[in-house]
Amino acid sequence: MYVEVCYTPELIHQFDLRGKSVVIIDVLRATSCMVAGMGSGVASIRPVASVEECRALGEQGYAMAGERNGQKVKGFDLGNSPLEYQEAKWLGKHIATTTTNGTRAIACADDAQEVVIASFLNLRAVVDYLSLQKQDVVLFCAGWKGKYNIEDSLCAGAIANGLSDMITHTTDATQAAIYLYQACETKLAEVIAQSDHAQRLSSFGIADDVTYCAQRNVFDVVPVLQNGELRPL
Amino acid sequence: MYVEVCYTPELIHQFDLRGKSVVIIDVLRATSCMVAGMGSGVASIRPVASVEECRALGEQGYAMAGERNGQKVKGFDLGNSPLEYQEAKWLGKHIATTTTNGTRAIACADDAQEVVIASFLNLRAVVDYLSLQKQDVVLFCAGWKGKYNIEDSLCAGAIANGLSDMITHTTDATQAAIYLYQACETKLAEVIAQSDHAQRLSSFGIADDVTYCAQRNVFDVVPVLQNGELRPL
Repeated sequence: MYVEVCYTPELIHQFDLRGKSVVIIDVLRATSCMVAGMGSGVASIRPVASVEECRALGEQGYAMAGERNGQKVKGFDLGNSPLEYQEAKWLGKHIATTTTNGTRAIACADDAQEVVIASFLNLRAVVDYLSLQKQDVVLFCAGWKGKYNIEDSLCAGAIANGLSDMITHTTDATQAAIYLYQACETKLAEVIAQSDHAQRLSSFGIADDVTYCAQRNVFDVVPVLQNGELRPL
Repeated sequence: MYVEVCYTPELIHQFDLRGKSVVIIDVLRATSCMVAGMGSGVASIRPVASVEECRALGEQGYAMAGERNGQKVKGFDLGNSPLEYQEAKWLGKHIATTTTNGTRAIACADDAQEVVIASFLNLRAVVDYLSLQKQDVVLFCAGWKGKYNIEDSLCAGAIANGLSDMITHTTDATQAAIYLYQACETKLAEVIAQSDHAQRLSSFGIADDVTYCAQRNVFDVVPVLQNGELRPL
């Protein structure tokens, strides 16, 4: 199994995604929300690029979710908190969502054989799934506005580390992500709390979200993109 | 002191270089050569983008150095080995050089207040110099054809780690580079020998260069760009 890591959407053109499992990682907070929602019984989540597309789907009966620059879009049903996604009222519902970085990354993965959603919350489930698939993997960090971020890189490292027995071929970026994860494994919540994005979000009073997203293996679910919609496997 | 890390030239547009010390890092092998040359008495080194520019400078009396895809350019006086740069015949001489990644990175740093050349070979000298300068720093990894590489990221991490007492503000990329370096500090030569680029170079039989470039603090020299030419401080 060939496992590559892409640190930001600005570098994704360097990767050939055809025939591969592309794993989208946006720990703070898009993919953590998707995992928490799917793990709590949301029927499907449709990631879209714009607020306008989200509103149009809202008129078709979707719940509207999303943030811009860390804050809930005005008039939307949900923001971008994994805690909101677990509320009982979304059980069996369909959600349309748009976020700054996560949905951008998903849109970049068009060529992939399949698109898988990962976060620390479903770390073991993703590792187990990829191990069974035995397909080549690109771990794709959503980053922040095109920049490198540490929480997504750590999660990529955690997945690659979990796959290490299966990996036959790797890259410098994958090796570095594994070393990074191993260095931070025992202080994950602390490192993520000190990250650039956690600092930015702290002004919105969402420290609870950051702590929540640093937890490993809370949900045993693997959301996969099918016809533009995420559904649990 | 604000210390940032840029992992590849493809991300350098994300950084504002004005008023900053930009530290160019191309461990395998451009900046290791520059440091070895300057540390061994070469008078100046002029980095240029193309083989043609190098040839034109050759006609003006410069020694011509450079590689394309890891191999010495035909008819040139030197390739891209730090061992060659230390030969007595280059003492007091002026060298023009062109390489795949290192000279590209230098060309991207036009807006910088100053351009400094770093490698593991002059790690302590660079840390000491930047500590005295007290200017904001961008550690700029040359990468490989626009891709992330581990040896330059490790060197950026080593410099940031050395500056940690001086750093007042940092980024996720800087923190990750520091964690990476700390994880690999005691097995640096081994990690670099297993890097993608070392593997690529191994087919050219230059394992000695790789081992050489993984050494720390061999030269107490800081090459700085002045009017398009590198000279020792």
